Amino acid sequence: MTAVHPADPADDPTDPDPADPATAAGTGASTGTGAGDLAADASEAGPLAGLLVIDLTRVLAGPFATMIMADLGARVIKVEHPATGDDSRRYGPFAADGRSMYFARVNRGKQSLAVDLKKNPEQVAALAERADVLVENFRPGVMDRLGLGPAQLRARNPRLVYASVSGYGATGPRSGEPAYDAVIQARSGLMSVTGEPDGPPVKAGASVSDLSAGVYTFGAVMAALVGRGIHGRGTHVDISMFDATVSFLEGNALAWLADRTVPHRIGSHHPNIAPFGAFAAADGQIVVCVGNDALFAAFAAALGAPELAGRPEFAENGARSANRVVLTAVIEELLAADTCAGWLARLEAAKVPCAPVNDIGQAMTDPQTEARRMRITAGGLELPGQVVKMDGYPDPLRRPGAPGLDEHGDVIRAEFGL
Amino acid sequence: MTAVHPADPADDPTDPDPADPATAAGTGASTGTGAGDLAADASEAGPLAGLLVIDLTRVLAGPFATMIMADLGARVIKVEHPATGDDSRRYGPFAADGRSMYFARVNRGKQSLAVDLKKNPEQVAALAERADVLVENFRPGVMDRLGLGPAQLRARNPRLVYASVSGYGATGPRSGEPAYDAVIQARSGLMSVTGEPDGPPVKAGASVSDLSAGVYTFGAVMAALVGRGIHGRGTHVDISMFDATVSFLEGNALAWLADRTVPHRIGSHHPNIAPFGAFAAADGQIVVCVGNDALFAAFAAALGAPELAGRPEFAENGARSANRVVLTAVIEELLAADTCAGWLARLEAAKVPCAPVNDIGQAMTDPQTEARRMRITAGGLELPGQVVKMDGYPDPLRRPGAPGLDEHGDVIRAEFGL
Repeated sequence: MTAVHPADPADDPTDPDPADPATAAGTGASTGTGAGDLAADASEAGPLAGLLVIDLTRVLAGPFATMIMADLGARVIKVEHPATGDDSRRYGPFAADGRSMYFARVNRGKQSLAVDLKKNPEQVAALAERADVLVENFRPGVMDRLGLGPAQLRARNPRLVYASVSGYGATGPRSGEPAYDAVIQARSGLMSVTGEPDGPPVKAGASVSDLSAGVYTFGAVMAALVGRGIHGRGTHVDISMFDATVSFLEGNALAWLADRTVPHRIGSHHPNIAPFGAFAAADGQIVVCVGNDALFAAFAAALGAPELAGRPEFAENGARSANRVVLTAVIEELLAADTCAGWLARLEAAKVPCAPVNDIGQAMTDPQTEARRMRITAGGLELPGQVVKMDGYPDPLRRPGAPGLDEHGDVIRAEFGL
Repeated sequence: MTAVHPADPADDPTDPDPADPATAAGTGASTGTGAGDLAADASEAGPLAGLLVIDLTRVLAGPFATMIMADLGARVIKVEHPATGDDSRRYGPFAADGRSMYFARVNRGKQSLAVDLKKNPEQVAALAERADVLVENFRPGVMDRLGLGPAQLRARNPRLVYASVSGYGATGPRSGEPAYDAVIQARSGLMSVTGEPDGPPVKAGASVSDLSAGVYTFGAVMAALVGRGIHGRGTHVDISMFDATVSFLEGNALAWLADRTVPHRIGSHHPNIAPFGAFAAADGQIVVCVGNDALFAAFAAALGAPELAGRPEFAENGARSANRVVLTAVIEELLAADTCAGWLARLEAAKVPCAPVNDIGQAMTDPQTEARRMRITAGGLELPGQVVKMDGYPDPLRRPGAPGLDEHGDVIRAEFGL
């Protein structure tokens, strides 16, 4: 194994990467002139200040990925059809002034340029020649037919990171099939393991397929840029909602891979640990996670039934898990005597991990949500904040809003000579 | 707005980034000697070949992030307690030979070094001085008390990207509270919107909180490395399972932010589009996604009831959504006449987006899963593949396995002089 060399003390940590042409010019965010000034100004916008991203994605998965890039300081030019723009401009919910919250959330901080791709694909090609990243989520083959496929654009700009995100991916027998979050949740097996054991399979109440693909796309593009810094070339990134959702199956997939066990729904309980899940109190449900025997003793005491910890059928986790149905009935009989709030106070005092089953309003007004800046405004609308938080870079409570259709068109056309 | 400069033609795309010390030595993957040879050899391992990651994380969220880094070619040194190692070495499901599938999946391709952090924290400090990335998921404060906190390690290595992942984050009133996936799903509101309308709230059947945080951590670390290339310094990345899950609420969060509507469970249906969800046929459920009026006409025809498209209460999406309960009953009465397989064949022929509600086995044996290499082997065990796919970098069907406890300890201690 080769020896590791220490960081070269001659490296000037304030000098931006001289090999990266995007930083040499400051593609939008900087107002400085020298490299040192550039570094100081650019970092005010975020870690990705200086990067140029051409965003042809629509609706959710793709725009979510490029939203994170915009939030982190990249210049994101959103290319939209001149007549209609992104379909999600017409998706609810709507703000009081009629603006689409859906569109506003994933497209905040981006610039909009209207291009009719069938008539003027060369405009996108011109942008791609100067860009660090291009992201698209058309059906596989569409971009190739426009002359804007990954091979075509990478031939003109070998440092381009070209990312495609789609329902099933750019390869394989289902490539090109229409994909919606519900379709992917069904085909991936996720629905089959969500819901009550005696109830029907049900979709997770969040667009897990769209959003996992969005975050994977963000990460993959970033990794490709790191790879560009190491190996000197761009790449074609290919992310699939189906792959992303399959990767989230985790324990359920492993059970099948281990011995072909087909997992079934178990409601909110854990297959191997008990008590670990949701339990009914007088006025609703609480979640309790007792991961070991010491916590079970504390839990039993807090329930006012310390003797439970002494019963052989509940004495250690394996037995508790095997006797989960009986154990759950015993626990719920005790919990029926008080409200969720009453029990949560006792359990928190006993340091037993637990939580209320919050509704959305309770979650959004939890003090932690506000302390973490997960409620912000962008363009005057209340929207969720940014998960990616880094020391030394901004995490603002007020962000720029989403653009009007072709709002930045004149400036961009002049700048790029389109 | 500043002008954009074209990519500098003097850049040699085959020359690795000379400013990055990790590539100058090839921290593990390369066998070449010259920079050109290094680039050719290193890229064989992946886009992150040459990066050194010190991984102190345990169980799921953190190890999932560093697993992606290892899959993409980074050298990941997993630091484990000498007596017990990562707790997940003892989590099921288990392979026939007794190995933990749970541990094997998220730790494939990593190296293991045993360190007693209380006795020998200076060993981790020594590794961190030479590393590009360090990732930890202890309770906030633990690393500081060991002298291994972000400020301490970044003072010794200003280029270090130090990532912390935790249940609630490094800041805020709940920072440090114990967090499990079920607790976060409950407190974030996700459980409240998952399940049938007349049934209890239920946990999504995947560890959405752990895994969304894992993918966000991977992406954030990559973005911080890109930022290091631009701005010349590392950072402290702070990712929270709670923030990640709140970000996945999407439409439900937006409804509340728009006008304080509290969303309720709607099973597998869509709040604004119909028919768009799961429907019962004779022998199970199928998912159908009819996003516009033309598709509804095709759907009605495939059901053998073309007249449905002419009924005013079903004529356009807004009306269909308002009349969803009646529409669902009409559809299910028709679907009762045949099996899921029979209906899916007709709908696919009519190009109506649909899918079976697959169980886990059906999902894992879908031809798309295999074509996308989402079933691979690592260390001889069948495991899920890697979602991040990039042209020009490997996506192997056989990956290195997970390490034994301290398997690489002797080599690493000699290499780093520990």
